[in-house]
Amino acid sequence: MKLTEETISKETIYDGRIIKLEKHQVTLPDGQTSEREVVLHNGAVSVLAITPENEVLVVEQYRKAMEKTLIEIPAGKLEIGEERESAALRELEEETGYVADKLELIGEVYGCPGFCSEKVSIYIAKDLKEGKVNLDEDEFLNLTKIPIDQIQSLLSEHKIEDAKTMIAFQYLLLNYNHSK
Amino acid sequence: MKLTEETISKETIYDGRIIKLEKHQVTLPDGQTSEREVVLHNGAVSVLAITPENEVLVVEQYRKAMEKTLIEIPAGKLEIGEERESAALRELEEETGYVADKLELIGEVYGCPGFCSEKVSIYIAKDLKEGKVNLDEDEFLNLTKIPIDQIQSLLSEHKIEDAKTMIAFQYLLLNYNHSK
Repeated sequence: MKLTEETISKETIYDGRIIKLEKHQVTLPDGQTSEREVVLHNGAVSVLAITPENEVLVVEQYRKAMEKTLIEIPAGKLEIGEERESAALRELEEETGYVADKLELIGEVYGCPGFCSEKVSIYIAKDLKEGKVNLDEDEFLNLTKIPIDQIQSLLSEHKIEDAKTMIAFQYLLLNYNHSK
Repeated sequence: MKLTEETISKETIYDGRIIKLEKHQVTLPDGQTSEREVVLHNGAVSVLAITPENEVLVVEQYRKAMEKTLIEIPAGKLEIGEERESAALRELEEETGYVADKLELIGEVYGCPGFCSEKVSIYIAKDLKEGKVNLDEDEFLNLTKIPIDQIQSLLSEHKIEDAKTMIAFQYLLLNYNHSK
């Protein structure tokens, strides 16, 4: 079955600092018309960073949308025109002070595909060197190091509520289980 | 470090069919003020459903926000007041025609925690029975069955771009690798 929805018209409801909200009038595959609410976002990057001591770097960060603190791997928004891998290295250093020479891509996913275009790239970084933390002025977070052998219990106890962090941790268990 | 952001005021920018957009004035942990864009969503549910033939049910669905078709496990929005497990069983039946007696929780995650409150519950369902597909009137999708032993290659080839589906598939690999 053809699934594509053709755009009849777009209306911008809000154009903000992080997101843009549009309403699209569309033609559905059966020829009927409908309306889609679309949140446009420039994209994000994140890094599963492993220290030489076999620890994973995570940040606790207050998330206003759900009014609670989440445990997440270091992450941030792409700047306009910024290349994803550079952005990931930049965010890693800004949030944790650690510097990596190279990244390997775990995957790129949409977290809320039903209405939002935000794609987050998830990288893994090993061979870290220590640098200097340098947060954005409206960014507050606690950096923590979690030994790799505690990752399984964090997942089993449902302590991880952030999608990219869950993906990164499962990837770690699937790929580094036997390398300790 | 204290991370909580206190709300000074809220403004509703848009109150739509699926999302509500608010702007919050907040006091940051250091006492400065800032602004947060917040997208409120009622929540969603999804099901990793495994047929008696060891296949996983997926739906291909056009996603307007990124203007492309994604492969996803069956999922849908919570109706107001609806209990998450009932919603998951309802969405599974509506989108695939399959009925499950019981669900087991894999996890509950926020896909875009930086600005959006949408929490998606991911369940696993086994012991499926066939029923009747019954889609929403603006919902169009292709149902496909993927043999479990092809899941690993779909992931390795970066064919899965939906966060909840990647979590469900990695969970499957972590937990059912040796049960075939």
